[in-house]
Amino acid sequence: MTNPVIPLTPADRAPAAPPIFDRIGIVGLGLIGGSLALACRQIWPAGLVIGVDRNEVIEQAVARHVIDVAAADLTIVSEADLVVLAAPVAQNLEILRILPDYIDKPVLVSDVGSTKRAIVEAAGALPSNFTFVGGHPLAGSTRSGIDAARADLFAARPWLFTPQGGDAAGAQAEVLPRLFTFVEALGARPHAMAAAAHDHLVAFLSHLPQLAASALMQVVGEAAGDEGLALSGRGLVDTTRLAGSPADIWADICASNADEIAPAIDLLVDLLRRVRDGLRDHNEIERLFGAANQWRDVLVRERGMKD
Amino acid sequence: MTNPVIPLTPADRAPAAPPIFDRIGIVGLGLIGGSLALACRQIWPAGLVIGVDRNEVIEQAVARHVIDVAAADLTIVSEADLVVLAAPVAQNLEILRILPDYIDKPVLVSDVGSTKRAIVEAAGALPSNFTFVGGHPLAGSTRSGIDAARADLFAARPWLFTPQGGDAAGAQAEVLPRLFTFVEALGARPHAMAAAAHDHLVAFLSHLPQLAASALMQVVGEAAGDEGLALSGRGLVDTTRLAGSPADIWADICASNADEIAPAIDLLVDLLRRVRDGLRDHNEIERLFGAANQWRDVLVRERGMKD
Repeated sequence: MTNPVIPLTPADRAPAAPPIFDRIGIVGLGLIGGSLALACRQIWPAGLVIGVDRNEVIEQAVARHVIDVAAADLTIVSEADLVVLAAPVAQNLEILRILPDYIDKPVLVSDVGSTKRAIVEAAGALPSNFTFVGGHPLAGSTRSGIDAARADLFAARPWLFTPQGGDAAGAQAEVLPRLFTFVEALGARPHAMAAAAHDHLVAFLSHLPQLAASALMQVVGEAAGDEGLALSGRGLVDTTRLAGSPADIWADICASNADEIAPAIDLLVDLLRRVRDGLRDHNEIERLFGAANQWRDVLVRERGMKD
Repeated sequence: MTNPVIPLTPADRAPAAPPIFDRIGIVGLGLIGGSLALACRQIWPAGLVIGVDRNEVIEQAVARHVIDVAAADLTIVSEADLVVLAAPVAQNLEILRILPDYIDKPVLVSDVGSTKRAIVEAAGALPSNFTFVGGHPLAGSTRSGIDAARADLFAARPWLFTPQGGDAAGAQAEVLPRLFTFVEALGARPHAMAAAAHDHLVAFLSHLPQLAASALMQVVGEAAGDEGLALSGRGLVDTTRLAGSPADIWADICASNADEIAPAIDLLVDLLRRVRDGLRDHNEIERLFGAANQWRDVLVRERGMKD
């Protein structure tokens, strides 16, 4: 999957696997939705990839051969076997609410949103022909939109699923292996965890680093100015790479996971204040660097990187 | 200068430029001192590079052809034209204090420490045969020690000099062009600024990002644990790369620049708390990302990066 843009024709490749889902509806053709569509078309040319987005996005999607068919109206996914919600978090909630007006037959629905408790709770109100399993591919880019979409976006990246308990537990347990097989075919590494555990974990792995990088960039930029930034090194460049992330997506994520992010910020603020008060204390600084060095080693080892 | 380890013999290269300094003493053969020595030997094979460090470091330096002569005693630099102090900040101060016991003839002394006010002030007590100009190459690595040394470490990196005013201003103004030519030959980009302005700037460009990255790594590591870190993405990896930096060097830097770093931490803490209180407020989050996006664009533009 080295060419993310132009799908291989069936003649160019090994006999294609039969589609795991014959008709996949993808609502929202941004970075994640667009990449998912591209990957599905390449892997299962016999399957149908149905896109839903605004007309101007659909035009781009068609031009890039991202989808088979598309419309700005949800009616087009009424026959889908799998519907994946790939709009921003708040919009996914709204789409999930109205989706039953468009689909009468049995359907599996998932999403790719960065926070999971709200949508998993909302899924409790779905009619019985719906089976919902929340999902979150931990893949991304500071670039957003369909222009940044690529079929190999999910390669070797975790894809977390959050089956809930309750009445739906049985149906979800039944479809989970199929979802695992589906994302494994995309190159991803599927995991299952509770929605609350997911939201707690990503507050630290993703949301806190994002907000820290953005806040650091603002503080350093305002103090150093253009001329000062010209003297910066790779350290600042790496530490603030996430500061290029798009505001609209993140306003949504922050709002939907505020009660997990706030205590994570508190922990960082508390530690920074302790460091501030101990700047002249070699033991305090060595304690900080000792812990940071150790966790950084774990991170490098667990990610299998050389650094 | 593609091979940082084995110096080219004079026969292999274009006629060498005459040395800008005939005898360069480098006190401290770590990452920076070792890299400086390597670069000088490659560029000016006719010059003499004199190293001072503990005997075990000298053995490594000799094995890697980093220096021409070396000793663990400062007596060996008594005939040097230029002495560069490249030990940790606190040790440089101590070495500067005793250096007049070893050198009677006119000598130019510089350093490569990350903070400048303390050493520039200490230089005021030097005898009249000394001319001191503080220096700081903004080059580095999270790896430290002579094993990480490389002749091209300074390529395209800023090298800040901090000439002070007062009695020494005339002598410093006279030698500054020679120092600029010297570091330009190493591939660096020389700048001059006041020591206080330097320490303020690096508190933001270097020290705050370092401490933020280390604190973030500790907080995220303790919350996520080994299994959680295994699910992390490139965002966390980049944001915490500096968390691999060595504690001993940084304890020194923090102590010597505490009064500039503390207010920088305060600004970051204040902004993080504002973000924390505004997590559910789209305008607050969009303001943060708007400012961060803008400064990140400046950073990328000023550094001439694509990213």
